[in-house]
Amino acid sequence: MPLTDRLLLGPGPSNPYPEVTAAFARPLLGHLDPDFLAILDETCDRLRTVFRTTNALTLPISGTGSAGMEACFVNLIEPGDTVIIGVNGVFGERMCEVARRCGAEVVRVDAPWGAALDPERLLEAQRDHPGARVLAVVHAETSTGVENDVAPLRALQATETLLLVDTVTSLGGVPLEVDGWGIDACYSGTQKCLGVPPGLAPLTFSARAVERVHTRSEPPQSWYLDLGLIGDYVGGARKYHHTAPTAMIVALHAGLGAVLDEGLEAAWARHRAVGTRLQDGLVDLGWSLIAEPGHRLPQLTSTRLPDGVDEAVLRKVLLTEYGIEVGGGLGEFAGIAWRIGLMGHSARERSVTTLLGALREQL
Amino acid sequence: MPLTDRLLLGPGPSNPYPEVTAAFARPLLGHLDPDFLAILDETCDRLRTVFRTTNALTLPISGTGSAGMEACFVNLIEPGDTVIIGVNGVFGERMCEVARRCGAEVVRVDAPWGAALDPERLLEAQRDHPGARVLAVVHAETSTGVENDVAPLRALQATETLLLVDTVTSLGGVPLEVDGWGIDACYSGTQKCLGVPPGLAPLTFSARAVERVHTRSEPPQSWYLDLGLIGDYVGGARKYHHTAPTAMIVALHAGLGAVLDEGLEAAWARHRAVGTRLQDGLVDLGWSLIAEPGHRLPQLTSTRLPDGVDEAVLRKVLLTEYGIEVGGGLGEFAGIAWRIGLMGHSARERSVTTLLGALREQL
Repeated sequence: MPLTDRLLLGPGPSNPYPEVTAAFARPLLGHLDPDFLAILDETCDRLRTVFRTTNALTLPISGTGSAGMEACFVNLIEPGDTVIIGVNGVFGERMCEVARRCGAEVVRVDAPWGAALDPERLLEAQRDHPGARVLAVVHAETSTGVENDVAPLRALQATETLLLVDTVTSLGGVPLEVDGWGIDACYSGTQKCLGVPPGLAPLTFSARAVERVHTRSEPPQSWYLDLGLIGDYVGGARKYHHTAPTAMIVALHAGLGAVLDEGLEAAWARHRAVGTRLQDGLVDLGWSLIAEPGHRLPQLTSTRLPDGVDEAVLRKVLLTEYGIEVGGGLGEFAGIAWRIGLMGHSARERSVTTLLGALREQL
Repeated sequence: MPLTDRLLLGPGPSNPYPEVTAAFARPLLGHLDPDFLAILDETCDRLRTVFRTTNALTLPISGTGSAGMEACFVNLIEPGDTVIIGVNGVFGERMCEVARRCGAEVVRVDAPWGAALDPERLLEAQRDHPGARVLAVVHAETSTGVENDVAPLRALQATETLLLVDTVTSLGGVPLEVDGWGIDACYSGTQKCLGVPPGLAPLTFSARAVERVHTRSEPPQSWYLDLGLIGDYVGGARKYHHTAPTAMIVALHAGLGAVLDEGLEAAWARHRAVGTRLQDGLVDLGWSLIAEPGHRLPQLTSTRLPDGVDEAVLRKVLLTEYGIEVGGGLGEFAGIAWRIGLMGHSARERSVTTLLGALREQL
């Protein structure tokens, strides 16, 4: 079966950094090998650096980004807890569904798809529900390309409500300050701006989020995602919980190394530069951008195709003739829009040149 | 940081097949790429072949073996359901814990560690609890090296109780007949006899297990492991659920290819031959075997060290001087026993020669 070399410009996965592919070729280590445990510790340190946190509980969950989302909710929520969730796309909706399955009472704060959430409305919802256990938002909505403002939600630190943030598409691509913004629980994915294949969910919990886990009346409904047990393996006691996915963790270690060798701020600037160039180029072609100005993610561009262009046909031509993958629209944008990622190792000037060149040839 | 080339003879991971390492070097594909979906379909077909089943719902869960365990319980159990669990080691105990977190009433059938479960006692427990939703056993207890008899439990097909079997350490290493033994729900891991790094949990559900999922009164408590939703992505509709771990799935595809190129029965015979040789060699050295005769797994040998030998010191010497990893004892065998794996690509005559040679040199 032939495997074509792809330029991955969809909403993830992005192309892995070459250092990541090289890491997969190294001899496999066991999950209790001292050499592996040293790499795991360094991986957690590197995650602290990219999350901008000193949180002790910072580790990769053994599943994809959605497992990170579920890990946050199952550890923080008990049945009957109130959770306030900002919803302006697929991933905010998913949070509502995951929270409900934990028995939460969900209070939604909606914004139109393509618009950003109003942090004041979120804080107002918290004032209306001061006993809310968690307020959750998606930093970078992968379904719309919108960046939601998280920094103003720091005000929750003066309340009993924990701030939970999805950074699957933002981590490593745009500024994010876990400690600076008072984020209590944060999860991400490896296959976006970190330039690593999908399979792990970086996660970090503040001291007060950890305190919440320790004061639950019942253990979390998930054994696999129980952070009390996982922390006993990753955090020092090395108590066996499940067999850690060692190859993927060594790959993540290498991807984080590539990001930090470049410098986190330099990586942010690179994502910003190439994303802006793509968005300008699309507008020049007569394509419209879906995310509202001022809240456009550089690493994930949602764009509406011109009338008369069959998006599925054009997407297939890009894939089969150029080996370029872009993403179709999700939810209310299915069939009329694209999502174009410039993330991690894919976030290069050359990617923009190639994609815009192919579009000019085809239109 | 130096990475040493290990001979992985612990309870998993085993050394990956060379074809698996090569697969990681191939260009990464997106989870909706037609080339990837063809590989995914073929991976599911190969899993059906090694599971010996025609079950439509057969796929790799995006987590390690323990995620497979959790996926079975959260999809089959609703609060208040009775679950009968055979317990003769760590992984039977883990099943009890996972089932309890799903709200199950757990009925235990215990056997001493090192002994096999009596299938008649399990069937008797089912006759005492005819409304039990699930009867669950571990086929190959990784903590003790014992193989439990599963075939007699086929009798459950005449009842309303579903048969759930953990085959994490057995799949690909010893005979297993999912359809022939009437197994309704079965999960495994990649890092044992399939010769792939840890990170995925192959899973298969019979038609009546799927029916059970479809007739639940509430959705499963886990969104990430909801087989109704996952099946819509893997099974044909290709509806996006979560981003599949594409690199690991391509690696699993390659590992299964290596197993099937050799032939499943040939792989079973190879595991049997090298395991028997190791066990004979250990007895010759004066080491005792923990698993009762007739129920000894060839791929996972639990052995008690001679008096006066410090197991931790000797294990460290093997690792640092020879690059050989073996496993310490778990649970009641911690500090007094080893677990030696000969699984997947590690299940070679050379591995036995190397290990016995090193032990002779050190003792």
